[in-house]
Amino acid sequence: MKTVILIGALGKMGQAALTGLGRHKVITAGRSGDVDHLVDITDEQSIEALYQKVGHFDSVVNTVGFCEYANFTEMTEAQWMTTVMSKMMGQINLVRIGQKYIADAGSFTLISGILNVKPIPYAIADATTSGAIDTFVKCVALEMPRSTRINVVNPTVLEEAWDVYGEMMPGFEPVPGKRVGKAFERSVDGFLTGEVIFVDA
Amino acid sequence: MKTVILIGALGKMGQAALTGLGRHKVITAGRSGDVDHLVDITDEQSIEALYQKVGHFDSVVNTVGFCEYANFTEMTEAQWMTTVMSKMMGQINLVRIGQKYIADAGSFTLISGILNVKPIPYAIADATTSGAIDTFVKCVALEMPRSTRINVVNPTVLEEAWDVYGEMMPGFEPVPGKRVGKAFERSVDGFLTGEVIFVDA
Repeated sequence: MKTVILIGALGKMGQAALTGLGRHKVITAGRSGDVDHLVDITDEQSIEALYQKVGHFDSVVNTVGFCEYANFTEMTEAQWMTTVMSKMMGQINLVRIGQKYIADAGSFTLISGILNVKPIPYAIADATTSGAIDTFVKCVALEMPRSTRINVVNPTVLEEAWDVYGEMMPGFEPVPGKRVGKAFERSVDGFLTGEVIFVDA
Repeated sequence: MKTVILIGALGKMGQAALTGLGRHKVITAGRSGDVDHLVDITDEQSIEALYQKVGHFDSVVNTVGFCEYANFTEMTEAQWMTTVMSKMMGQINLVRIGQKYIADAGSFTLISGILNVKPIPYAIADATTSGAIDTFVKCVALEMPRSTRINVVNPTVLEEAWDVYGEMMPGFEPVPGKRVGKAFERSVDGFLTGEVIFVDA
């Protein structure tokens, strides 16, 4: 049994990840709600505080990354930076700060999303930061300290979120959260590192 | 003959790009030195001023993007952000602001670099932002206005820069600047869009 910090535990992607973490002690974290620890991944001090409060942990599973959606021609610098500071730098900072605290041979699992390989309107900032995170994971795996591992789950839309996103994703086929949970499980319980684990229909 | 704004014209990559722009009117820009216009791509107002001063133009060729180099475990948030705001957001802002000014059917050509597909030590921020730019170009091409195009040149190290970078890139084979110039030429003079034009030995 590992101790896993699950960030964004109450969201739909967090609940999907949770289905793959059944054999572990899961410590829940998120920006609000009934979680073990509050954390804002856009705030370095909040991240550092989370790790210090938890103490020993083997794995970090992140399922959050806020994105702004707009046509490229209309998207503002502020909208870009909100996305960059959450989905991209928020996740990089989870690893950058977390590598000081995580147990030997521990693992980080980040989240990106299929829109960097299947683009749709309004999602340029989401796609660009997903591309950044997929690249980050593939490259940084080669220099992670103390046998720690890192992967990213790149899922298509969840069945559980289809009522929200389906209209903007014509021709996409959603997948059940349980299948995405298996991707997180492979990352946490396997020996993979530097992998972009795609989950698509 | 097109009017091409070449940013970073005095650098080694700018000189390489210039070899492919022989049939055009080239307006040079850069952060310092003997260029037609000074521009700092990390400053939105500087970018806007450049386009306003130039007036009519058909193409933007960018060859700059400052990166910090360090081991991941030692790289600071400030080093990350310097890289993100130049190589990534600086280039995105060149396009975001430039799409308002560029001529119909004009083109943007950005720069990334081979380290996102051939990782080396110290280059995680360079690789991550190159991955972001490659993804950005592939996706944003689908929504560029007024038949404008966008591509990115992703080169390996230049022969002309081997004395500076060769030591940190064992096993890489540099390419002559003229070959990289041809990639810029294909982007500016062809009908490609949404392409990552790799130049590798």
